[in-house]
Amino acid sequence: MKKIRHINTRLSIVVPLIQKWVSALEPTLARICLYHLGLVNAHGRLCGEGGGKLTRSSLMMAAAAGVDRAPEDVLSHAAALELLHNATLIHDDIVDHDELRRGRPAAWNVFGVGLAILAGNALENLGLRIVVDDSGPGHVEIARLFTRAIGLVHEGQARELTFKPGPGATTAEYGRIVDEKASALLECALMIPAMRAGKPEHVLAALRAAGQHLGAALQMSNDVEDIWGDPAVTGKPDRGDIGRRNLTLPVVLALAADNPVRDPLLQLWEADNTTEAHLQAIADLIEEAGGRRTAQQMSQDHLDSAVENLRRAELSSTATAELTTLFNLIVNRAA
Amino acid sequence: MKKIRHINTRLSIVVPLIQKWVSALEPTLARICLYHLGLVNAHGRLCGEGGGKLTRSSLMMAAAAGVDRAPEDVLSHAAALELLHNATLIHDDIVDHDELRRGRPAAWNVFGVGLAILAGNALENLGLRIVVDDSGPGHVEIARLFTRAIGLVHEGQARELTFKPGPGATTAEYGRIVDEKASALLECALMIPAMRAGKPEHVLAALRAAGQHLGAALQMSNDVEDIWGDPAVTGKPDRGDIGRRNLTLPVVLALAADNPVRDPLLQLWEADNTTEAHLQAIADLIEEAGGRRTAQQMSQDHLDSAVENLRRAELSSTATAELTTLFNLIVNRAA
Repeated sequence: MKKIRHINTRLSIVVPLIQKWVSALEPTLARICLYHLGLVNAHGRLCGEGGGKLTRSSLMMAAAAGVDRAPEDVLSHAAALELLHNATLIHDDIVDHDELRRGRPAAWNVFGVGLAILAGNALENLGLRIVVDDSGPGHVEIARLFTRAIGLVHEGQARELTFKPGPGATTAEYGRIVDEKASALLECALMIPAMRAGKPEHVLAALRAAGQHLGAALQMSNDVEDIWGDPAVTGKPDRGDIGRRNLTLPVVLALAADNPVRDPLLQLWEADNTTEAHLQAIADLIEEAGGRRTAQQMSQDHLDSAVENLRRAELSSTATAELTTLFNLIVNRAA
Repeated sequence: MKKIRHINTRLSIVVPLIQKWVSALEPTLARICLYHLGLVNAHGRLCGEGGGKLTRSSLMMAAAAGVDRAPEDVLSHAAALELLHNATLIHDDIVDHDELRRGRPAAWNVFGVGLAILAGNALENLGLRIVVDDSGPGHVEIARLFTRAIGLVHEGQARELTFKPGPGATTAEYGRIVDEKASALLECALMIPAMRAGKPEHVLAALRAAGQHLGAALQMSNDVEDIWGDPAVTGKPDRGDIGRRNLTLPVVLALAADNPVRDPLLQLWEADNTTEAHLQAIADLIEEAGGRRTAQQMSQDHLDSAVENLRRAELSSTATAELTTLFNLIVNRAA
């Protein structure tokens, strides 16, 4: 697709910049961060072009085109956003005891917890420094938005960690976690080019709402994919979330007070059993309770709202079309 | 002492502000941070007035008086600096496997590593947000200095973690770690009030140099105290640094290539033995090599240089005298 070729061309300038900046960190931290980013192997030797999907920089560059800015105008912010996102992933893998990241051992699993904590800190600080050191139009407001967003991600991660079945485990609380953990950085991606271009408040509000709904749609879609992902596309569904008893949206829906499967599901949920058969039984009960269908529908509704808000943001029609394509690709990876 | 009473009065406004801000974080993170700060116990109940010495806010407020600013003018920055410093301590305790902090179980030891990582992140972000959200005179430059300083602390922590006996373990490399880990935030404390007051570059440079030397003097003094601290003042010397085989200054000096005790010391150092007798034998060899005397002398030289630079900073004479007293108190706690 022509649109996607454009995006890839723009992204080809992001990775070298990330590599240059990260390489200037203290040598051990540089190596850990480059490893996490998929740019070097565990021995520090160059490999590949990075493992991430660069979702946030793709969005930012497409949004820049929509307000008549060249990719170079938001290049450093796009790179900074990827650094911040990856900083949260390095820590998230420690917090969740995830041994693998993008098919390779997670950073803490290779370099130890202590150095991985410091590497995440260094990567986050590098991203913030880029933004704070910038002096282009709107830089003060942009730095504030950025700093606030990264704080929201930490708070969302903590809220998720303490989110347990019980009276607090409502879709409202789930929504709040998603707003903080998944949407905050996507909102930055869409808003920053418009802030740089000095667009008025109603444009920024529409872009913020688009990012918020996009984050919700993406997280809800990931939640469904973890349990029922199509093996042809994603391999066997991982079911890591139910294995670790993370309260994802389908579970929250099935555990709602008025759902008839609530009690039997809670029994399976609280059993110390992660065999494939047990996870299958949990998945079946959630599906029977309507958790899969409703979560899919909610994801689609949020995607529709994201596109609707995007259309209100007065971007160029080419950019609106390109971002709509990107939104769909991001949420429905299989599409 | 009258001077110290002044300082305590000024500090009495810092703790309530810290308490207010931290309490507004996500509830679990708020509780962990308040616990770490010594403001609540492990059950979340109020206790005491905080465990820290508020060194950095004391310095900042005294420096503010020296450029004719009221304590309130730098209050939020003083609180932010304490938050950042404490954020690094929460992570440092995880990285070093330190089970105790200020005589109580460390945050990770009470709440687990995952939540303690997020609590450190949230506290650091809160400190940065306060600075980035500020819009007083010099706010852009101040935010840049702050953000850079916290990054240096992370890099210094990593450099320290990978600092092992060998050709790289020189006093120059030790000095670099101290510049990053100990001095960066002290430089902020002294410089920010002058930046707010719009003081010229030579004043800022003098204050930066004062902070840099103060950090070196403090770290070197702590290094000596860990091994030979006066039991009457600090209790039995802890020797935690040599127990964990941290390369502190007396060790680096004793392990220098031309030191005759180098080989026997290296043998004791590399043995997997942390008994009191073994640590005593290490301490004795370091002392025999002159590591204690030289480290003490170097600490004193840096303290002298800190005061000398302070005198060049053109602060009011009252503030210069007060800061000189504070410098001495900070470095020689026993004094």
